[in-house]
Amino acid sequence: MTERPLDIDSNETVRLSVSEAQALGERALSRVGFTPEDASVVAAHLVDASLWGYEFAGLPRILVIAERPELKKPRAPIAIVKETPVSALLDGGNQVGYVSYLRAAEVAIEKVSKSGVAVVGVRNSWFAGRNAYYLEKIARAGFASISFGSSTPTVVPPGAVRKILGTNPLAIALPGKVNPFIFDMGTASVMSGEVLMKAFLGEEFPDAVGIDRNGTPTRVARDMLEGGVLPFGGHKGYGLSIAIQALGLMAGARLRNGDVSDFGYLLIAFDPGLLMPADQFTSELEELLTKIKNLPRQPGVPEIRIPSERGFREREMRRRQGILVNKKVVERLQTMS
Amino acid sequence: MTERPLDIDSNETVRLSVSEAQALGERALSRVGFTPEDASVVAAHLVDASLWGYEFAGLPRILVIAERPELKKPRAPIAIVKETPVSALLDGGNQVGYVSYLRAAEVAIEKVSKSGVAVVGVRNSWFAGRNAYYLEKIARAGFASISFGSSTPTVVPPGAVRKILGTNPLAIALPGKVNPFIFDMGTASVMSGEVLMKAFLGEEFPDAVGIDRNGTPTRVARDMLEGGVLPFGGHKGYGLSIAIQALGLMAGARLRNGDVSDFGYLLIAFDPGLLMPADQFTSELEELLTKIKNLPRQPGVPEIRIPSERGFREREMRRRQGILVNKKVVERLQTMS
Repeated sequence: MTERPLDIDSNETVRLSVSEAQALGERALSRVGFTPEDASVVAAHLVDASLWGYEFAGLPRILVIAERPELKKPRAPIAIVKETPVSALLDGGNQVGYVSYLRAAEVAIEKVSKSGVAVVGVRNSWFAGRNAYYLEKIARAGFASISFGSSTPTVVPPGAVRKILGTNPLAIALPGKVNPFIFDMGTASVMSGEVLMKAFLGEEFPDAVGIDRNGTPTRVARDMLEGGVLPFGGHKGYGLSIAIQALGLMAGARLRNGDVSDFGYLLIAFDPGLLMPADQFTSELEELLTKIKNLPRQPGVPEIRIPSERGFREREMRRRQGILVNKKVVERLQTMS
Repeated sequence: MTERPLDIDSNETVRLSVSEAQALGERALSRVGFTPEDASVVAAHLVDASLWGYEFAGLPRILVIAERPELKKPRAPIAIVKETPVSALLDGGNQVGYVSYLRAAEVAIEKVSKSGVAVVGVRNSWFAGRNAYYLEKIARAGFASISFGSSTPTVVPPGAVRKILGTNPLAIALPGKVNPFIFDMGTASVMSGEVLMKAFLGEEFPDAVGIDRNGTPTRVARDMLEGGVLPFGGHKGYGLSIAIQALGLMAGARLRNGDVSDFGYLLIAFDPGLLMPADQFTSELEELLTKIKNLPRQPGVPEIRIPSERGFREREMRRRQGILVNKKVVERLQTMS
């Protein structure tokens, strides 16, 4: 039986196997100053994002990374600067978050294995990509985790005319029978990658999900780059975004540039065994998800979706089928210097 | 200078001082079987909700509590059934959550004081009211906290025709310079109290925020009682609601009735000092909130609101002015037996 192709080839795309994509990413990242080891870590994250179907969180992200001012500034090794048996504060040494937050997840797994719970913060770092990537590793080690990531101003409080909050993702992952349950969301109404893409293509959003540089509500993606975007879910998304910005501060976000709206990561992980035997929890979780999945549906609704379920399915298929990357992006990455 | 009255008296309401409201609540709760000590704990929570301006989370809630089937079933003392230096699992003994979750918060404060962090679960309990109430106590002890509460089916997954998720609140509180920062939201699109009130009054919502017993989308509050309500914020609110239901399971929600959709509470608290000196954090948090507060505003917007800010202000005023309670509710509580 032939597997349904997930992505349709075109003249504008190149199909790459996982190892080809990894090699292309590593090469490009090395050229912009990453050590081979770090290039490998970042590329693996980006390729994984592509496998999940998040095109703009994949290899194209390298083009954005390459332009970041942080790359021109000195970097130091990632270091634990404060530590207890249940906590660690990492200074990212101006390294990219893809590297520092993975280290934080590893530290969290070590600490939870010994102490049952861990609070791990990361300061002085930037872009960390999909938080689900780190939480999956923690969940596969058998632990529950919650991740808060603050970032630089993109989101505008309801009623304001200026951005001050980051896209501030919240992610929660729990160990499962086969795959973990992973929920990962930004608290902005639209993803930054989507705004960048639509701005590049000169497109608009269906609704006025942002403001322009003068603070006027707009649907035009390009104008939002200078203005900002609204939080998702009205005042609830806004409140959550502030809470996450504050938790980022607690991890030392302000240390980067003296600004209270900046990158900071806070990871809380714990052993479900503190409360319940692992097997019992994964069985009960599966029962809950199966019940939700099997609910009777509204007319025309093909399936009730469960967070991360589609992603795991698609990742398996793309591992066999390969991923599509925009041809111009591939050429740019190949010639990067 | 005379203080602006927050609530307008009418023929249908009675104005009660805090101590009058507390005494009325304690008396009514004692009559339906609460010990004097527990009646005092529950009444204090309900009066606090009224002071914050949450009318239907206040004394009227006693009328709902009085009808709950749990009150007819045997109760046992709240007990810690599983414990480590960084965690505790409480069996609520079929006690109301207002009592058991307060105990959980006290246990969390003790554990965090000694170990820096605590994961505390509560099973075999029900209604816990406003999670912000407990988190305020933890924040005033100097600690950060996150609360997840799962409950019985009210919320319908997008595309489904049957409710399976609870209203599943998420709350985050952080210590502040004067008052803590508290963010407390339900993951349902509308509050249960609001649905009950509108159903009672025969009212509709402006949008189809729920379904009726046949699964058809509806704006009619009464129909939603049998059908269900949608999650807030589309798929993001839905995913968050599942995550919270799963965390409730981990605390033992299924133990109550064998159902995977039931009450379970999970509280995570930690000392910000694990990452940063307390004074530095509260200063930086204040700086962030002040910056947000002082942002330039859209035309016609009187102020940028910060979660919990209005509540603290109003609570101070109502402590002086008293609270308004529906006259029929007062009469009913006075004659409760």
